[in-house]
Amino acid sequence: MTVEKMNVAIVGSTGYGGIQIVNLLRNNQNYKINYLGGNKSAGSKWNDLFPFLQLPKDPIIQEVNINLICDKCDIAILSLPNGVSSTITPKLINKGIKVIDLSADYRYKSLDKWKEIYSLEESKYNRQDYDLCSQAVYGISEINFESIAKANLISCPGCYPTSALIPLIPFVSQGIIENDGIIIDSKSGTSGAGREPKQNLLHSEIAEGVSAYGLIDHRHTSEIEENLSLISGNQIDITFTPHLVPIVRGMLSTIYGRLKDPGLTSADCKILLANYYRKFTNIKVLSEDIYPSTKWPKNTNDIYISLKVDKRNGRIIFLSAIDNLLKGQAGQAIQNLNLISGLPMNKELNHSCFYP
Amino acid sequence: MTVEKMNVAIVGSTGYGGIQIVNLLRNNQNYKINYLGGNKSAGSKWNDLFPFLQLPKDPIIQEVNINLICDKCDIAILSLPNGVSSTITPKLINKGIKVIDLSADYRYKSLDKWKEIYSLEESKYNRQDYDLCSQAVYGISEINFESIAKANLISCPGCYPTSALIPLIPFVSQGIIENDGIIIDSKSGTSGAGREPKQNLLHSEIAEGVSAYGLIDHRHTSEIEENLSLISGNQIDITFTPHLVPIVRGMLSTIYGRLKDPGLTSADCKILLANYYRKFTNIKVLSEDIYPSTKWPKNTNDIYISLKVDKRNGRIIFLSAIDNLLKGQAGQAIQNLNLISGLPMNKELNHSCFYP
Amino acid sequence: MTVEKMNVAIVGSTGYGGIQIVNLLRNNQNYKINYLGGNKSAGSKWNDLFPFLQLPKDPIIQEVNINLICDKCDIAILSLPNGVSSTITPKLINKGIKVIDLSADYRYKSLDKWKEIYSLEESKYNRQDYDLCSQAVYGISEINFESIAKANLISCPGCYPTSALIPLIPFVSQGIIENDGIIIDSKSGTSGAGREPKQNLLHSEIAEGVSAYGLIDHRHTSEIEENLSLISGNQIDITFTPHLVPIVRGMLSTIYGRLKDPGLTSADCKILLANYYRKFTNIKVLSEDIYPSTKWPKNTNDIYISLKVDKRNGRIIFLSAIDNLLKGQAGQAIQNLNLISGLPMNKELNHSCFYP
Amino acid sequence: MTVEKMNVAIVGSTGYGGIQIVNLLRNNQNYKINYLGGNKSAGSKWNDLFPFLQLPKDPIIQEVNINLICDKCDIAILSLPNGVSSTITPKLINKGIKVIDLSADYRYKSLDKWKEIYSLEESKYNRQDYDLCSQAVYGISEINFESIAKANLISCPGCYPTSALIPLIPFVSQGIIENDGIIIDSKSGTSGAGREPKQNLLHSEIAEGVSAYGLIDHRHTSEIEENLSLISGNQIDITFTPHLVPIVRGMLSTIYGRLKDPGLTSADCKILLANYYRKFTNIKVLSEDIYPSTKWPKNTNDIYISLKVDKRNGRIIFLSAIDNLLKGQAGQAIQNLNLISGLPMNKELNHSCFYP
Repeated sequence: MTVEKMNVAIVGSTGYGGIQIVNLLRNNQNYKINYLGGNKSAGSKWNDLFPFLQLPKDPIIQEVNINLICDKCDIAILSLPNGVSSTITPKLINKGIKVIDLSADYRYKSLDKWKEIYSLEESKYNRQDYDLCSQAVYGISEINFESIAKANLISCPGCYPTSALIPLIPFVSQGIIENDGIIIDSKSGTSGAGREPKQNLLHSEIAEGVSAYGLIDHRHTSEIEENLSLISGNQIDITFTPHLVPIVRGMLSTIYGRLKDPGLTSADCKILLANYYRKFTNIKVLSEDIYPSTKWPKNTNDIYISLKVDKRNGRIIFLSAIDNLLKGQAGQAIQNLNLISGLPMNKELNHSCFYP
Repeated sequence: MTVEKMNVAIVGSTGYGGIQIVNLLRNNQNYKINYLGGNKSAGSKWNDLFPFLQLPKDPIIQEVNINLICDKCDIAILSLPNGVSSTITPKLINKGIKVIDLSADYRYKSLDKWKEIYSLEESKYNRQDYDLCSQAVYGISEINFESIAKANLISCPGCYPTSALIPLIPFVSQGIIENDGIIIDSKSGTSGAGREPKQNLLHSEIAEGVSAYGLIDHRHTSEIEENLSLISGNQIDITFTPHLVPIVRGMLSTIYGRLKDPGLTSADCKILLANYYRKFTNIKVLSEDIYPSTKWPKNTNDIYISLKVDKRNGRIIFLSAIDNLLKGQAGQAIQNLNLISGLPMNKELNHSCFYP
Repeated sequence: MTVEKMNVAIVGSTGYGGIQIVNLLRNNQNYKINYLGGNKSAGSKWNDLFPFLQLPKDPIIQEVNINLICDKCDIAILSLPNGVSSTITPKLINKGIKVIDLSADYRYKSLDKWKEIYSLEESKYNRQDYDLCSQAVYGISEINFESIAKANLISCPGCYPTSALIPLIPFVSQGIIENDGIIIDSKSGTSGAGREPKQNLLHSEIAEGVSAYGLIDHRHTSEIEENLSLISGNQIDITFTPHLVPIVRGMLSTIYGRLKDPGLTSADCKILLANYYRKFTNIKVLSEDIYPSTKWPKNTNDIYISLKVDKRNGRIIFLSAIDNLLKGQAGQAIQNLNLISGLPMNKELNHSCFYP
Repeated sequence: MTVEKMNVAIVGSTGYGGIQIVNLLRNNQNYKINYLGGNKSAGSKWNDLFPFLQLPKDPIIQEVNINLICDKCDIAILSLPNGVSSTITPKLINKGIKVIDLSADYRYKSLDKWKEIYSLEESKYNRQDYDLCSQAVYGISEINFESIAKANLISCPGCYPTSALIPLIPFVSQGIIENDGIIIDSKSGTSGAGREPKQNLLHSEIAEGVSAYGLIDHRHTSEIEENLSLISGNQIDITFTPHLVPIVRGMLSTIYGRLKDPGLTSADCKILLANYYRKFTNIKVLSEDIYPSTKWPKNTNDIYISLKVDKRNGRIIFLSAIDNLLKGQAGQAIQNLNLISGLPMNKELNHSCFYP
């Protein structure tokens, strides 16, 4: 008895996100990589570019070609720059191909909001796909699994929003913390900034340095706010500060809020959190006073969460640690691929941490 | 015409703090290192331990000996573990030796407060030097320079408090930000944790990892609170979260507050800050939207500060970057040594950043 | 139909080697971890020490107890300090337990040789197990697989010898390179130095530094020499220089030799090497002018090898890259465990590289 | 009494080499930076680009303009890409400006040799300045100080050749080691590869990896060979293997040779080396069995050298550690600038190592 594998197209396969998807699917018994698309790398043989990640039959990376994708695949995972995704997603959807998109193009319900935040991209692509924006399902697997399973277009969250929303959602949705004054201080590894050569990402510039960027105005601020607001039913504005730290993979978000009921203890809040996610083995709520390193979820699809309450004043701190390229990007995409395929969401995603 | 050099004792000379002090003084025209004290390293020749930091005449590291220090030196810089410092400081002061202490032993006005926070050390040393605690001057050079210049005992601030207090003091002292809800999210290099071998500080454990520790209860929380409260005249309680990042030297503090007058702009606040410290060339207030890397102050005694206001809600973010071993420790000690010696505070402390 | 799993004892389970073995076996369908032994950590619950590597039923780490091991296990993997292993291996073997030893205790055919090289350990343990030394099989899986399969005691090679011997053996055994003048310049990650806290292994000491150690006299020199001499039939003395580089996992050995026939080209030598190891999928011989990074085999049991000939003078350079904790230690141990168990040597060892 | 400062042009000021030169000269009492030239950065204000390295009067970076340089400066330091330097050096020399060149353009006595090795650049620039090549002095300060002092054009050595030649020259020039079979295995920090954005130099690609490149054919092989051959009077061919290690600054070369007289001991050779360089305080010959880390010379112009002899066979190993951007590049340029200006070669170059 053989399982029929689903045929998957990976478009944008040579960036860090694409490489992870290839890696997660290449020996996966449920999926077959049937198309590898790239832009600058089109025409190259995969195995020449990636001697450390060989594929059988050494496929050639293709230019993006809608017909070819439709002929060969049931589903497409797009790991493309913002804006570019919107140039092919409508065509794929129209031809009946399901799309899992890793860009920001379908993360807002309202295309107008997107145009405001991604104005640079908008000036280039002049989008009109309002309907698709409103139909797309925001792909936090453990929250939206039901609608993901039925969706044609899944928009995967950014790595920062993933690390912030998973710990916050149980508390915001149930009105346990104040809507006002939430602060998210995130520390990201450099792979989150992608594989395009940029001076500020050179090893010589990054090593031995820590710095913040995008204060107040970072694009993910609005993505987090939209999702928290939807969940709470109120307009929530947050403060989000991303930092670049000299690690390759990993993201730690330190999140500050205030309890509405300052009588709640760390233990209470921990139970509440663990309970909320009790069905999800990849969400690991840690014991009190155990704080995760980004080394723990590295190369896995897990998220580790700790919390602690300041008894003096009811303030609460959350720590959440993920691998920005897996749970923060490609791993979550595969969770969604599993859901869309009717499989358990963590199927073949239970990778072990190779510590240290 | 020759200047008579002041004779300095460095007690605790082989930890990271001690090494910096030796380095800053060894070719300094105003000071002579006349005593090097250590504990485990007593009896060793300095040049054998530090082939990369040679001293003339290859001095031997001495066991701690009060009489010897008093005979040979005018002033002692103590870079000793918490608690240990209090076992020799009173004796040195009594013999007329001025003391610059890098431990936490004299950072609180009240010894009882110290006993509460440093209970482990108290159980070992059983201190009674209440008077010294109240007399000691807290050594943030740019704030307390007048009293430092006249002090017999200077207690140097911790690296975290230094990075947090310098940006906050102008705003708290002038009532520009709310006393309530200040959050300090700090990222420290590993040298701040010292040179004693510990498993969690091994390269294999630290590299490729970011983690938080000491949530809510870190000892520096109370040190920062005491100093902010003194300055504002109100009891201020803050939230402080230290993080360990895989850099050797450097500290970035991201500080969150709320403006009392939400009409103030980033530009207003920047002018206010720059004005407050206009006389201090080592405090570098950056232009709007320029954010420092910890690489910038590395190997210097400078502090770089940026700030930005969220126009929507009057929240303000400060970034402050220092070298934790210099402005955060030994460099500040030498500033205080200069002040005590009647010299300009930054004398021979104008080191250049060797970028990258 | 269920497979009966072999019961395995892991003695020395909380060092970096031990952690890898737990990780490789915890979900392995062929083996069951039935005993976890430690020394300092005895009495602790595994899951408290390793929140990122949870074991079902949260086992307690046991003190080393021969009877307990024999009652519960068929085979023991020892990841113990040099010398300590020899205090329990003879007892285990006598009771019919097969032993895979990761220490240096059984790497020399002659115990007297061991006593000469490991004189410090010998002065402490005063060994007499001459017979066991001569019987132990040196565990380079791809070379000695036949004798490993039949052995009672397998002595796993050090990480440096593994990275050097695999590329050299085809050329030394077939007399293609000169016996004289082989130079091995190796660069190792810090995890190879273990998890015991030592000052020189602190992140602050290691980061941003590269250094050599153990020039001429490093213990692995004699281990490499013994094995090359056995294979060639002549006494071979090599020059081996280990270096510490600021990476956690990984080892690159750059190996220099001279061809007997200077007419051989890089292509000739590559074919020869690929041919020699054609049956071993984890030995990856790279195309000409493709040189491996230690990132490629990271978290895998693979070894990547490149070579190049200097046409001017017949000199040859080999590059070999491994994960020092897997192919260089625990992965090779599991290969040997598979061989001893009658399984394909790379069974459940085909891990993917998570690049970058 | 004021010293008249020499006016210096820095052409190519925003790469890593240029930044070092600015840093070394900006507070130097003997020199005034009177022209800053750049290419892509022309028109920018220096202080906007380098907030951490401010210059008084905030100069504007100029396009390269021979007349302007000649009007304002006595000497030009060129930190330009290979080939580009040759387009302006002849013009500057003709107008009486002395030139210190950091490119490879004048490192070979024979332009034809350069054309062979730098064929790519030759195809673009089609050079004819044969005479200048033969006149240029190779700028290893401690070897060629006499001719440097009188030169119009100094060609600074590459970082690899500097680290290799300084330890080798005493032994090759005096015929103590064999000309045949010298192997240089070098490990370089990433700043040596420059500041141009390249994918393979991204932090995500570099961190946690060690790799070799340019086997056999690296351009510095011929540069080292030319200089060793000149010194020994015989044609010497070496094996040189450069490696990239994840540090920003620093280079360690491990050099292998054979003593002609195998009776020489490590102590003999150490004395010989120390004696050869006894006048040069920045060349630090270490005691036996003390091996340098690249952290020791970091941010200094020093070179640390160790050596050890294998008593069994007369092989000798040298270790040499430098800061690739200082002694390996800009620091050596300033030594040469001092020599050309009649100053002591290490004037204002005695920087301290800020350890760790």
